Amino acid sequence: MQPPATLYLNQDHSALVILDQRLLPQTVSYISLTDITQVWAAIRELKVRGAPAIGVTAALGLYIELKGFAAHNTDAAAFENKFVAAKSYLSTARPTAVNLDWALAQMEKCFIANREKPIPEIIAALGKAAKSIESDDTDICSRIGQHGAALLKNGMGILTHCNAGALAATKYGTALAPIYIAQEQGLNLRVYADETRPVLQGARLTAFELHQANIDVTLICDNMAATVMSKGLVDAVLVGCDRVAANGDTANKIGTYGVAVLARNFGIPFYVCAPLSTIDKETKTGSEIIIEERDPSEVTSLWYKEPMAPKGVKVFNPAFDVTPHKFITGFITENGIVRPPFQF
Amino acid sequence: MQPPATLYLNQDHSALVILDQRLLPQTVSYISLTDITQVWAAIRELKVRGAPAIGVTAALGLYIELKGFAAHNTDAAAFENKFVAAKSYLSTARPTAVNLDWALAQMEKCFIANREKPIPEIIAALGKAAKSIESDDTDICSRIGQHGAALLKNGMGILTHCNAGALAATKYGTALAPIYIAQEQGLNLRVYADETRPVLQGARLTAFELHQANIDVTLICDNMAATVMSKGLVDAVLVGCDRVAANGDTANKIGTYGVAVLARNFGIPFYVCAPLSTIDKETKTGSEIIIEERDPSEVTSLWYKEPMAPKGVKVFNPAFDVTPHKFITGFITENGIVRPPFQF
Repeated sequence: MQPPATLYLNQDHSALVILDQRLLPQTVSYISLTDITQVWAAIRELKVRGAPAIGVTAALGLYIELKGFAAHNTDAAAFENKFVAAKSYLSTARPTAVNLDWALAQMEKCFIANREKPIPEIIAALGKAAKSIESDDTDICSRIGQHGAALLKNGMGILTHCNAGALAATKYGTALAPIYIAQEQGLNLRVYADETRPVLQGARLTAFELHQANIDVTLICDNMAATVMSKGLVDAVLVGCDRVAANGDTANKIGTYGVAVLARNFGIPFYVCAPLSTIDKETKTGSEIIIEERDPSEVTSLWYKEPMAPKGVKVFNPAFDVTPHKFITGFITENGIVRPPFQF
Repeated sequence: MQPPATLYLNQDHSALVILDQRLLPQTVSYISLTDITQVWAAIRELKVRGAPAIGVTAALGLYIELKGFAAHNTDAAAFENKFVAAKSYLSTARPTAVNLDWALAQMEKCFIANREKPIPEIIAALGKAAKSIESDDTDICSRIGQHGAALLKNGMGILTHCNAGALAATKYGTALAPIYIAQEQGLNLRVYADETRPVLQGARLTAFELHQANIDVTLICDNMAATVMSKGLVDAVLVGCDRVAANGDTANKIGTYGVAVLARNFGIPFYVCAPLSTIDKETKTGSEIIIEERDPSEVTSLWYKEPMAPKGVKVFNPAFDVTPHKFITGFITENGIVRPPFQF
């Protein structure tokens, strides 16, 4: 059994169809995004999330928006203005994910290379570029999985935080790719999935997709990681990342930093599964990474319904943290494993 | 403004009235416990929680049960059998809290000292013993607060986990006592309250009672502690405890161990506020402490309603963890601060 598809283009390329991850694990519901406002909102509201999936969504979303626009507009200057505006708008959907900007930059390169051509040809080129971002992602995740699986042995326990799995990408994911590939190779692993407050990606998504794939997964609250590690149940930590600075400092889902400190304390290797597109050489250290703060209601209301904290209480709700490179054993990339000293 | 009373005896001592902490912070609701089955269930179901409050509840609950029994039974042997059975039954309500057994043992001492007397006199003595456990607790918490406040300076940031506050005791609490006393002394502190999954005592109780008391409190998810510490916002960690072994290993709410490891990593002092009754000299090290595992639905269902994890997924849900003594800067007791090497 495999987890359901994360996203796909409909037949006539008028819509990007995505699995609404906000409704998992109870409801598997696909929604059609037919314009860029819907694509922007889907990214912002975490209906689609995970750095690779966000990049693919932005690229495919930009493509369907421009395809729709061109159906009613044949002026080249208007088309170019539309491209610039749409790209600029989409880039504001999530401030931290470098893949968003990276995928949009790929689309821009394609646009610039084809701008002198007739609009239908530009559209075709953009569609091809977006789809190759998608298939490249599957290839990259598979290769990360191959390199990562080589570190694993039968019976090992793996702890992961948040969801950097198939649901965060096109297939395999990043942090879960070594687990899926190891399973394909016949290894039995035990996986501990941090639930990952406040949005519970671990409980809703990681536990869901691993359970669907018949992998032995145990859900824990974030604050149980120390206990599980202290019992000798964890042989390695595998996490994804949203942005890696040139020195290896890594922005990832809030809570990753704490897991890294714990892993170091218990002598457990801590690996970041990082497509090279996630490595941002322009950002020298983690201190330059802007951390998005999200709505306090994510913390004070349980799944946006019943209030579970006193009305009016102050809340600090950073979406990410930055794990200093010294806590990172290695980066598992599509080109192999990078070990310290890190210098990207 | 003060937090509401945690528990009290009604006028004719036919009922123990407790604040149902399961309904906080939305509803402040008091319920009357009129027999021992209700008292047992209130402790088991966390309607009353916190080591000192559990001890006081058990003692007062035993008293009202025996008072009720004696109203209809005048046989001394039957009364003694009732005492033994009731005490034994109550001791099974929560396996980890030493205060439960300690308070029941105090009641047994009182019973043995008075067993030759007429039943009404035994009842009166048991009532007096139970009420003195209650007033002693207030005195102990106040003294812990005095000793702890001496460690604090104006403007400091304090991180706490779970709820070891006024709601966990009769007044002041343990971990929050230094904060309340410091406030009485005119100090302004900033408090970071871990929400404390799965039962959210930090969000529902600590944030509630500190907010009520006009103390500057910020609610965070458990996995944000590393970020808050890394920003230099935390000058000390104060936590309570459920049981301290002779070597200083400390059982407390799940997640405490992780906070202690983080505090050590960031060079932040980590204090356990411990009434001497919580120190169990008979338990040599933390490895002898039995850790209660609770219902998986606490993790998989948000506040026991909507499922937030896939059906059938494995869950590990320990209620407590044991922080090794090496991570503890000191114990703040009613008799002063105990620093390493710990030998209770």
